[in-house]
This record gives sequence, C-alpha cells and structure tokens, in this order.
Amino acid sequence: MNIRNSTSNIGNPTPFNAPIGVFDSGIGGLTVVAELRRALPDERILYVGDTARVPYGGKSAGTVTRYSREISDLLVTEGAKLIVVACNTASALAVPELASSYNVPMIGVLEPGAVAAVKATRSGKIGVIGTRATIGSGAYSRAIYSLNPGVSVTATACPLLVPLIEEGLFDDEITDLVLSRYLEPMLKSGIDTLVLGCTHYPLLKNAILKICGDRVTLVDSAENCALAVKAILARSEHAVVEPHLDILLTDSSEGFLRIAEKSLDLKIDSLAIRSVGN
Amino acid sequence: MNIRNSTSNIGNPTPFNAPIGVFDSGIGGLTVVAELRRALPDERILYVGDTARVPYGGKSAGTVTRYSREISDLLVTEGAKLIVVACNTASALAVPELASSYNVPMIGVLEPGAVAAVKATRSGKIGVIGTRATIGSGAYSRAIYSLNPGVSVTATACPLLVPLIEEGLFDDEITDLVLSRYLEPMLKSGIDTLVLGCTHYPLLKNAILKICGDRVTLVDSAENCALAVKAILARSEHAVVEPHLDILLTDSSEGFLRIAEKSLDLKIDSLAIRSVGN
Repeated sequence: MNIRNSTSNIGNPTPFNAPIGVFDSGIGGLTVVAELRRALPDERILYVGDTARVPYGGKSAGTVTRYSREISDLLVTEGAKLIVVACNTASALAVPELASSYNVPMIGVLEPGAVAAVKATRSGKIGVIGTRATIGSGAYSRAIYSLNPGVSVTATACPLLVPLIEEGLFDDEITDLVLSRYLEPMLKSGIDTLVLGCTHYPLLKNAILKICGDRVTLVDSAENCALAVKAILARSEHAVVEPHLDILLTDSSEGFLRIAEKSLDLKIDSLAIRSVGN
Repeated sequence: MNIRNSTSNIGNPTPFNAPIGVFDSGIGGLTVVAELRRALPDERILYVGDTARVPYGGKSAGTVTRYSREISDLLVTEGAKLIVVACNTASALAVPELASSYNVPMIGVLEPGAVAAVKATRSGKIGVIGTRATIGSGAYSRAIYSLNPGVSVTATACPLLVPLIEEGLFDDEITDLVLSRYLEPMLKSGIDTLVLGCTHYPLLKNAILKICGDRVTLVDSAENCALAVKAILARSEHAVVEPHLDILLTDSSEGFLRIAEKSLDLKIDSLAIRSVGN
C-alpha cells in the first residue's frame, strides 16, 4: 500500500468498472466497507474519509451537509455509480437534503438500521446509541416510528465512544466503565434491541455484548447497509470487473487507519491524500 | 448574549480600541481568555473558535497550519493588535511558520509554558501532557531543552482528556481512571513539574492534583501566556478603552461553550457564527 498526494483520478473508472463510492467523516466507515466486501466481494470500492474535518458528530446540520456535499461531488467526479454515506451523522443530517441532488443512488446507514431494528424487537422497546448530532437530530426515532408507531425508542448520545475506539481501547476497563454508564439505564428500561448508530461502534461489539449479555440483539447498521446496497445493485445492470479498495483521506491519518485495517481484516490497494472544499 | 450569523466586522475597532485577537480550534482556548481577563482586565478581546473543524489535535502539521493561517487572517481583518494562539497544537505546529507573516505580534502558549516549567523544576525532571499532534511534534521538548539542556522531559499524549473535558466530566471516576493511566508512569519516573500542554487541561486541574498530590507543580500554559501578552503590551503604546469579549465560532457549538463559560466565570458580550476557509 503506497501513500501519495493526489489530484488525479483514482485509476480509470469506466461505466464497466465504476466503483461504489463510500464516505465517512473519518476512518470509522471502513466497518461498512468490510461488510460491503463480504456482501459484494467482487466490487470496486472508492472510500473517502474526511479526516481533515473529522469528527462530524458534534457539528451542526448546516456544516455536516456542506461537508457531505463536497465529498459526494468528489465521489461523483471519480465515477462512483452509487454513494454510500457510511456515517450515521451525515446519514441523519445530510442525506435527506442531498439524496435528490445526484444522478446516482445515495444510501445512508440509518434507514437500513431502522428496518432491521423493527424486525428484530420482540418487546417493542428499541435502544439507539450514536453521536450527539445523530441522536440530537431524532432521525433514528423518526425512521423507526414511521415503520412501526407502536414501538418505543430510547436514544442515548455516547460522545466518549468514538475517542475510545480511535485509541483502540476495545477491551479495557475504561471502555467498560463508559459503556456501563451509557447502557445500564437503557437496559433497565427493558430494551431488547440496540441499534449501533455510529459506524465506529461495531468495533466495540464484544465489549457491548459483555454488558448486554444475550438479553439484547445488536443491530449493526454497517451490515444492514451493505445488504441494502446489494439489493439496489441487483436491481440495476452493472458489470463487475475486479475487487479493489482505493482510499482517499482529506488529511493524513496515523494510528486509527492501521487499527481499523487490522481489526476489519481489510486489504487496501491504494491510499492517497486529497484536499476538499478549501 | 445574542447569537447571530455574521459577515460584518465585530463592532468598529480602531487603533484606539483594537482587540487582542485570540484563537483556538474550539472552545478550550477560553481558559487563556480567562487568564488574559485576569492579567489585563480592561482589554477588548476577540476570540475565534474554529468549531467547524475542531479538533486540531489529531491532524497533520500542513492542515493545522492552513487552518491557523485562515483564522489569523480573519483576526487581522478584524483589527487585532496582537494574535494569541490559544491552542497548543497550533502553537506547536503552525506558529513557527506563521509568526513572521503578520505585522502584529503572534504569541503561542508553548514558549511561556516551557519557560515556566524550567523555572519551576527542582529535580530537573519535567512532564508534559498534550494532544497527539502537540506531543508528536516534539515542540515542548525542544523548547525546554533549548532553555536548559540539563533537564529531562517525559512527554505523554493524552487524546482522551479533551473529549472527557468537553463532556464536563471534571469530577468523575472515568476521568480519574484515564488520568491515572496517563500520569502514573510519569510520576514513577520522578517528575516534579507537569506542563498542562493543552488549553483544555486547566479545567481538569483539581482532578490532576488528586493524582499528583503536592509532589508536582502544575504549569498552566494559559496563565503564563497571559503574562507574556501583558509584557508585550506593556512595551508597546496602546490605548485601553473598555473591557469587551466578542466570540466568533466557525460552527454553532452547543454544550461545551456553556460549560466553559460557567467554569471560567466569563462574561461574553457577543457570539456570532462565521464561515472561514470554505
């Protein structure tokens, strides 16, 4: 894997090998790439991580939408045949406004997660965890209620989880203590389903399972988003040429890319730095 | 305090009431403003927090320098008579390159902290804590060694502290556990002086003192920076008109501004949102 500063196109995508475009505020969306790789092993994937402006989770809807538009424009310029918004914050705040602006389908991680949660619950009590911006938007609650107005949703912002994950503290007493603080009140309220409403969170699955035990079904939005992408592509004509994963970041990113690459067992074919927006 | 979207100048600064310009990646630099207010109670202060792109602490030197230049340009346009870089990451990565670009003095928080640490140590063993970018730059170690090559410096990146502070967890077992993890090895190595190398950290002074006890002198770069600014202004002619604190943010910022305002007992006269760079 070589790192380069790049202003030219990634390879030479044509209608026959157009990539699936995926973006996130940073590296966390690679959990979605890992699931896409599993669901669609032969697809070419172009991932953009906006590491120069990461994180989106504490920022306003206007700013997150502006950043998401700039990254989506880049993906379309690079020939993406479909845009996957592999960031719950951008899915909640920007996708509703942006989805109709492009000639290619745009799919967020939020809807697929909501559908899976409604399917999974038996007690009708669903918990959602996410960033402050995602939870504050109320987008998960709205999506779940629109599918089934009879369920109850408990949503909790967990702003400390992303920093812990980016430090690689997957199996650590600090992480366990933070998770207990966030999850115990939700468990006491009787949830039987928990939506991991941030693309970083699947990396904490084991730690979350330690606290929730088998009382709760975890809904991984990454996994469900990949299945939704597979369904869209199955409905359209597309030629598959070769599996390939190219990554563009808007700033150099040190530790966490390596942590994610290793934890997710991803093969990265190229990594380049590209300025966006300014 | 009223919030407005702003493209016009802050008040109408003239050479006679030109503000001290202060900037940080976000809200944390208000600890420096609080110290400036204490050292120079009659000065007009204009603070810019780059909340649209916060944090700087994990980003590259190139990106941090670009962002710092954009904010400094804004401060100069607004008539600042002096630029205080109230962000250790920007002080470490951007000030050396930018300081000569402006017609007004630019002062970072790093040098004053280094000077105070060298003065304070008896054992000759100094600890420094900061963001990943600040510590990775080696700027504190270089500044301290250049003042006294005989001391030894132990520097530790503490990336979890800013998120904990932004959650307001000043007195919390999670924060105590994280601090112990970072500080115990430094204490064991025999440091008697600890530089708080991030403008957020003074908000954790009490929690840090609980772990360090009276074995260690804490060096607050905010306090020392304010004294350095006072010394510069004492050397130049300047007319003082009225105390005033105006704040510009590049994105709306919810909880942490209120936490900082309350913890630091600051009176904010105006708050506006202003886009920068893109």
